[in-house]
Amino acid sequence: MNIKLAGRLIGALLALEALFMLPSLGLALADRERPVIISFLVTMGLLLSLGVLLRVICRNNAPEPSYTREGMVTVALSWIVMSVLGCLPFRLSGAIPRFIDALFEMVSGFTTTGASILTDVEGLGRALLYWRSFSHWLGGMGMLVFILAVIPGSQQAGFNLNLMRAESPGPSVSKLTPRMGQTAKVLYLLYFLLTVLCVLFLLAGGMPLFDSLCTAFGTAGTGGFGIKNDSLASCSPYIQNVVTIFMALFGINFSVFYLLLLRKFSEVLADEELRLYIGVFGGATVLITVNILPLYGGRILESLRHAAFQVSSIMTTTGFCTADFDLWPSFSKSILLVLMILGACAGSTGGGLKMARLLLLIKELLRNIRRTLRPRSVQVVRVNSHATDENVIKNTNAYLAAYCVIIMVSFVLISLDGYPIETNFSAVLACFNNIGPGFGAVGPTANYSGFSDFSKAILTADMLLGRLEIFPILTLFSRYTWSRKR
Amino acid sequence: MNIKLAGRLIGALLALEALFMLPSLGLALADRERPVIISFLVTMGLLLSLGVLLRVICRNNAPEPSYTREGMVTVALSWIVMSVLGCLPFRLSGAIPRFIDALFEMVSGFTTTGASILTDVEGLGRALLYWRSFSHWLGGMGMLVFILAVIPGSQQAGFNLNLMRAESPGPSVSKLTPRMGQTAKVLYLLYFLLTVLCVLFLLAGGMPLFDSLCTAFGTAGTGGFGIKNDSLASCSPYIQNVVTIFMALFGINFSVFYLLLLRKFSEVLADEELRLYIGVFGGATVLITVNILPLYGGRILESLRHAAFQVSSIMTTTGFCTADFDLWPSFSKSILLVLMILGACAGSTGGGLKMARLLLLIKELLRNIRRTLRPRSVQVVRVNSHATDENVIKNTNAYLAAYCVIIMVSFVLISLDGYPIETNFSAVLACFNNIGPGFGAVGPTANYSGFSDFSKAILTADMLLGRLEIFPILTLFSRYTWSRKR
Repeated sequence: MNIKLAGRLIGALLALEALFMLPSLGLALADRERPVIISFLVTMGLLLSLGVLLRVICRNNAPEPSYTREGMVTVALSWIVMSVLGCLPFRLSGAIPRFIDALFEMVSGFTTTGASILTDVEGLGRALLYWRSFSHWLGGMGMLVFILAVIPGSQQAGFNLNLMRAESPGPSVSKLTPRMGQTAKVLYLLYFLLTVLCVLFLLAGGMPLFDSLCTAFGTAGTGGFGIKNDSLASCSPYIQNVVTIFMALFGINFSVFYLLLLRKFSEVLADEELRLYIGVFGGATVLITVNILPLYGGRILESLRHAAFQVSSIMTTTGFCTADFDLWPSFSKSILLVLMILGACAGSTGGGLKMARLLLLIKELLRNIRRTLRPRSVQVVRVNSHATDENVIKNTNAYLAAYCVIIMVSFVLISLDGYPIETNFSAVLACFNNIGPGFGAVGPTANYSGFSDFSKAILTADMLLGRLEIFPILTLFSRYTWSRKR
Repeated sequence: MNIKLAGRLIGALLALEALFMLPSLGLALADRERPVIISFLVTMGLLLSLGVLLRVICRNNAPEPSYTREGMVTVALSWIVMSVLGCLPFRLSGAIPRFIDALFEMVSGFTTTGASILTDVEGLGRALLYWRSFSHWLGGMGMLVFILAVIPGSQQAGFNLNLMRAESPGPSVSKLTPRMGQTAKVLYLLYFLLTVLCVLFLLAGGMPLFDSLCTAFGTAGTGGFGIKNDSLASCSPYIQNVVTIFMALFGINFSVFYLLLLRKFSEVLADEELRLYIGVFGGATVLITVNILPLYGGRILESLRHAAFQVSSIMTTTGFCTADFDLWPSFSKSILLVLMILGACAGSTGGGLKMARLLLLIKELLRNIRRTLRPRSVQVVRVNSHATDENVIKNTNAYLAAYCVIIMVSFVLISLDGYPIETNFSAVLACFNNIGPGFGAVGPTANYSGFSDFSKAILTADMLLGRLEIFPILTLFSRYTWSRKR
């Protein structure tokens, strides 16, 4: 294990995190919130000194070989370290008095979950609210991908690919350009432009600038932290519709936008994952609209607005709410529960199993039936007319198995708190899939403050496991990672 | 597709089913229940004439080639036909006035689920109760396996293996003896002897002969149909303990008993599936005992009795009850829910995912991590020191994917009835994994009569899919099955 490689990158990451706290510090200064100013200053000082220290200690000019495990470990450690340090402003300022709560909130931010332990969001103050929402934006595309984009040639090509693989969601990484640093640039540029567009649309609806920025961060990262206690329920239908559309857009694989820019429309239209995403999205919206029609006095447009918003919010794993869907009929709730599991597209900021994996799992299942019935024929799994690498299929299968095991173990462990099965099951799904709200005691009008510290720790781990797609975290516990042998 | 091969075997099966109705006919005659006598006579006549007709139509003396698909299709069609015809006594006698209910009850019997739509079990009469419980015994080991055991050399060796594969639960079939007919004989002999032992132990506890027989059938097949409205709650602790132990025994892979008879004790002790089964069983029992201790006034032995009974009942997918576990704390309920999914051992009469599959999935997951971290090394999945066939691993992965898809789709469809998520989710799990009772509206003190016909049809399909382990049923819908090409 080449730990210096990880150390150097984490050093850069921490310095960058300090930089990203500047707007919040500015807001705190503007609002003259003394404890918040101090907490940000202390944290930034800590981040910078630790960052510089790591860069110095792990300095090494000789080129070093690096492998998959280096990428995995770097990503896993980065996310843990940046969450533990990033939550300090909440804890030091006294806004969130207990460390486990602050960590839960921070991990929920970076992993774009949006699950909160806060009962009074509006009481947090602008500086902390901004940091909380901005963490969604940073976590959505990934801080390490950002480093790849802004620090040119800072790492070797092989290492970069492994980093992208480990930090980007989905069964495989789309190489938009031959060089990974270039790909990271393109991704962040698209991400930035779409976010700006979202802010502009929100401003056009009369939303104040601060609210627009925070809402756009939550939408772009598909995070879901609101800045109001009622999430987006009190916003105008226009704002709700804008958010619906942008959530759906941020749930799409970013390579699709790149293809659109390159005017490769036929490739976009033929993309199987996109078609599945649109199909599931449309189907779920129609079914729920019809199902909740009586609740909204038969007004189709209102039902459609709430249904589309909630499908968009849950499927992209954002977690904003306009209505208390916990009160919706069982059929609608069940569809939402399934959407929680399925999630958005690979290569988007959304979480969940991902459409690409669903596609692979179903195709592999069908291939297995064909293979059993006609053992002599050679069968290949094709996505978008390309034969899929067998290792990707094996990884996807292993992912599903790990997913099921983690969900079940977490579900049993948090049930020690005594909440009903519906609450526990949806809490684990909502955290692991980085959605935010679940049903019952963790429903859209409630929050996670009622859980014990033990359960909060489990759910925090679930959020990280879900965002990093299990394997980087598991890698930390494998003896193969830390052995000298290759 | 060689449909004649299937036709011949189904013909024999139907004639055999008529034969197996004789004891019930005798009971009906003894109790002078006119409508029941007539309904059994009509059904038996129908079964015999259809059976003979199929044998005549599908006669063919020339040796025919047969493949996996023939085995799959034969098993799937057999189970459907024998359920549709087997439920006629319930329907014709008027005991269950509606066909869908009668079919649900019969499929629940043959698939050893034990889910019931009856609100008053005791009102059914001895003849129908006997048939209902006996269907568990027949379905537990499989009617086709029985035919292989009793009709010597009736089919070709290759076909026999495919039949066993399709009807016996688990990722792979243990060939106890080189010839499949011989293996089937050994299995049924062990099954018969263990059942007799169970009956004797129940009789020793003062249970009447009829009750002992029916209870033993439900235990041996890990079915769970009771003959009392309160399942086994009113039985003595001795009876409950006997049932606990025998349920646990019938959840073990029968090849273990065969090895015991051959005095291969070291192989038994080294069996990884058995060790996992005992470990999960013991762990769950201890945790639940501690968790429910306050409910039973701190009386450890009583808690242990109820916990062990319920773990045994749920894990082996039997579904007998001694206590309303729906009222137990969330932690205990969650453990039971996970046990519902895991199920018993492969090659037993129990359902669920099976310990063998769990073992394979976890080992494949670990291999995948090793392979990612050390891409150059060759990694093999070993169970009981033997390298596992890669096809078995692929099948297990496909099984998990199909399992998840079917559970989710069924869950959404039955939620149209408006029951809460906990009820719907546990109903689907309880039916698919052939357990019987779930939580909430399908809890141990309730039944499935409240569901709509549509939901009952879905759940009936789930029971069949679960018992036959998905692929034989899916095979019916594949175009490869019905094409002329090999």
